[in-house]
Amino acid sequence: MLLNYDSNYFMQKAIEEAKSGLNKGEVPVGAVIVIDNKIIARAHNLTETLCDVTAHAEILAITAASSFLGSKFLHECTLYVTLEPCAMCYGALYWSQISRVVYSAVDKKNNPNNLRSKIHPKTKIESGVLANQTEIMLNEFFKNKRS
Amino acid sequence: MLLNYDSNYFMQKAIEEAKSGLNKGEVPVGAVIVIDNKIIARAHNLTETLCDVTAHAEILAITAASSFLGSKFLHECTLYVTLEPCAMCYGALYWSQISRVVYSAVDKKNNPNNLRSKIHPKTKIESGVLANQTEIMLNEFFKNKRS
Repeated sequence: MLLNYDSNYFMQKAIEEAKSGLNKGEVPVGAVIVIDNKIIARAHNLTETLCDVTAHAEILAITAASSFLGSKFLHECTLYVTLEPCAMCYGALYWSQISRVVYSAVDKKNNPNNLRSKIHPKTKIESGVLANQTEIMLNEFFKNKRS
Repeated sequence: MLLNYDSNYFMQKAIEEAKSGLNKGEVPVGAVIVIDNKIIARAHNLTETLCDVTAHAEILAITAASSFLGSKFLHECTLYVTLEPCAMCYGALYWSQISRVVYSAVDKKNNPNNLRSKIHPKTKIESGVLANQTEIMLNEFFKNKRS
């Protein structure tokens, strides 16, 4: 039986990834990449653990999904990510020609609206899925970090 | 005796990296990262070899330099790269807070000027070093690819 999962289901999986990152002291951002209703890559932010600014959840998920598919292009794939991608990750998503990006919390700090124009014409963007959960998680993380 | 190498010297090293990429059928882009007059990371584009759109020379060099230094920040470092960074790589350089970026050929296609505003305030940019060599190499590569 083929179950058709919805965006809430896959974003919940991305949130589980974000929580794994949180448990390691990382900024809690998680991502999954889905094709044909199946998760083919899961990742969370590992910039502190790997001592590498490029180790954002999206970058690690793109690398894993391409490895799984044997294709550097992620046509027909959807990325679910708990926070709006930064400029680096939007750039990587551009090169991947991914079909769809669904993000949860809006990143008011790092993403002026003009970055949207850098998205590949093949890519659709949706936002706000389960944002009530992801915004609380991120706000709590930064509040604890400051105190 | 401490030799003080100049930008031409380090860009030549980046060009050697680009040629290594060319020999593997990659778009010929090479990069080195330098601190205190010493090369601490070398990389070339490996997107085809690794089947990964994120495997640009700059991304691989940033990861290698951070690993060498044990720091996710590349303060006091200079990146020499044979082609102007794309949006993804400018984004990664932003996070790295690198002190200086020296690129050779201008990328007229992928880099509208407005990307410059995404550079970290700590980062200085220079361009055009040995551009006569790198532009010929890139133009030849794309000409051969089309024919």
